[in-house]
Amino acid sequence: MTSCKPDGIETPEVMIDLGILQRNIDRMAAVVKGKGMNLRPHVKTHKIPQIAALQLAAGAVGLTVATIGEAEIFVDHGATDVFIAYPLWVTPHHARRLIQLSATARVAVGTDSVEATRAMGKALSDARDKIEILVEIDSGHHRSGVSPSAAVEVARSAADAGLRVTGVFTFPGHSYAPGMPVKAADQEQEALAEAARLVGAAGFEVSRISGGSTPTASLTHASAATEVRPGVYVFGDAQQLELGRCALDDIALTIAATVVSRHVGDAHAPRRLVLDAGSKVMGSDRPAWATGFGRLIDHPEARITTLSEHHATVSWPDGTQLPALGERLRVIPNHVCLTMNLVDEVTVLRDGVVVDRWRVAARGKNK
Amino acid sequence: MTSCKPDGIETPEVMIDLGILQRNIDRMAAVVKGKGMNLRPHVKTHKIPQIAALQLAAGAVGLTVATIGEAEIFVDHGATDVFIAYPLWVTPHHARRLIQLSATARVAVGTDSVEATRAMGKALSDARDKIEILVEIDSGHHRSGVSPSAAVEVARSAADAGLRVTGVFTFPGHSYAPGMPVKAADQEQEALAEAARLVGAAGFEVSRISGGSTPTASLTHASAATEVRPGVYVFGDAQQLELGRCALDDIALTIAATVVSRHVGDAHAPRRLVLDAGSKVMGSDRPAWATGFGRLIDHPEARITTLSEHHATVSWPDGTQLPALGERLRVIPNHVCLTMNLVDEVTVLRDGVVVDRWRVAARGKNK
Repeated sequence: MTSCKPDGIETPEVMIDLGILQRNIDRMAAVVKGKGMNLRPHVKTHKIPQIAALQLAAGAVGLTVATIGEAEIFVDHGATDVFIAYPLWVTPHHARRLIQLSATARVAVGTDSVEATRAMGKALSDARDKIEILVEIDSGHHRSGVSPSAAVEVARSAADAGLRVTGVFTFPGHSYAPGMPVKAADQEQEALAEAARLVGAAGFEVSRISGGSTPTASLTHASAATEVRPGVYVFGDAQQLELGRCALDDIALTIAATVVSRHVGDAHAPRRLVLDAGSKVMGSDRPAWATGFGRLIDHPEARITTLSEHHATVSWPDGTQLPALGERLRVIPNHVCLTMNLVDEVTVLRDGVVVDRWRVAARGKNK
Repeated sequence: MTSCKPDGIETPEVMIDLGILQRNIDRMAAVVKGKGMNLRPHVKTHKIPQIAALQLAAGAVGLTVATIGEAEIFVDHGATDVFIAYPLWVTPHHARRLIQLSATARVAVGTDSVEATRAMGKALSDARDKIEILVEIDSGHHRSGVSPSAAVEVARSAADAGLRVTGVFTFPGHSYAPGMPVKAADQEQEALAEAARLVGAAGFEVSRISGGSTPTASLTHASAATEVRPGVYVFGDAQQLELGRCALDDIALTIAATVVSRHVGDAHAPRRLVLDAGSKVMGSDRPAWATGFGRLIDHPEARITTLSEHHATVSWPDGTQLPALGERLRVIPNHVCLTMNLVDEVTVLRDGVVVDRWRVAARGKNK
């Protein structure tokens, strides 16, 4: 990432490097296209219509979202094909919004139970054919989703409820751990292929077979999936960095922070800095394997050892120089999606110069 | 908490029980008044002017905030005495905003270094006397703050920079762990008393001696502190519950969530539920001693074992009944302040009936 500590930015501030962002978007588009699959990026990562527009311009066939509210924002901004990759429990309120969306966009939603398909069919009433249904498969993450063999029953219940099943999907979230991407990608593809085979054999036309994820997208093959849904790849983050799924040069989003407290250490208290970028802007995800709560892009030797809302406490190895009070540092959050749940606007830079501000239009659209 | 699963609430939704909120506010006000101290609640916990008004009506002398932006919101809504309990690195932009605030409110800010006092004195220029300065003391949390003996140097540098030192403060954050509240409260009072004594002996009038925190406020005595700054007590949360600092009946804030995925368990995947309240609305703080990522208020036997943005995965003990798909459950987040960093509005209930919606006016005011 080019150095960018522009004057006039008050901290903490989320900064996006447009050149790196575009490169990440183009690279994933080329990889997925080269494999003969469709790219349907998960836009919960950024929640910004301008970035979705760049992804669509680079060849994405549509967008993935997590909520109806996110779908509404992106369709309002011109998206014409959205997949709500979530096992929605559809209320009458949801149904009205889904039908409204379907007036201008192709809309698909997930499901993983007989009960949910019945509720959905009832709520959608005579608009059942307007929404596509993808059955969620558990490929080893053990969150939502059913086994490939149980997918047939869910698909049949959807059909019985008058719904239109067009495929299956999975999220291999267990790929987010060291040594796991290859194994998780194998399990993902095996589960998708098996589910598609069984649901197809039950008489359904399985035209969409949809896989995750930033760690696994480049490991997925067209023999198992028609599309992939990576999200984090646009920005990168400290998790992807420590998993080896991106390099420091690929990090497009950092948080400008100021050193507000500095301690050289003594018998009573450790050597440390405190930055004004806490969990209020970074989120507090810290998987057990992570080396801290985030990284500093210009100081790979430092670690954010504790995190509170307004304070990131940073340790430096003995013998290194501690940055000065008031200095601006650039933080890489562990999980960049959480940052975008927290901030209303971001600063956009090109070659270290502020060129724009973008509103995080879908932030807080949690329903 | 009275049962409140009103129809018409779409999930996930933050719900505040007004009766319990008022009781929590009144109880802390009485405890602190009974000890002869002032109460200056930290309003970053709720970020809602209507709740600050209840706290002030119950006798709070002023408000504590973490950022200038939070101060601006609460002063706009009528607060006349705010303490930014944070070691601000004051830029010219900050200085203009602090001076603006001081036109209608008494304003104090924290500092913990010679360098920061110099920067602040320079930025405030001829408005230096409009802002009070409290020196931050490290009472064992080892985040920001200096030792009591180093406080004198910081106070002197502030005076040399033309600033007006009126006291000392500390935050005993190490009280947020099992068995620690009493020890941390002792260290807090010892450090505050020592710092006040030394700074006073150096010729400063130490009129404000300010301590934390929800776990320690009721353990603090007027011999060591003139005021306390608890925040979380208004709502309670799963951390305070597991620390024994509040009871289930004291929990004023819960998150209504829907069961979207349900699995009875088999050889391949564990028994579990998935709720639509993930880290997007709960935050993902999980101290090592916590039993999970949050609790369910009506199901003390259940545990949120994993948490992603849109999914809370909940385990129930074997032999218990799993709630049904589509059922509404009420979640207690681990750290309630993080929830208020994420949501724009909350639903207010009295005796289970929706009576209001409040805007989280200071959400996102991170600077």
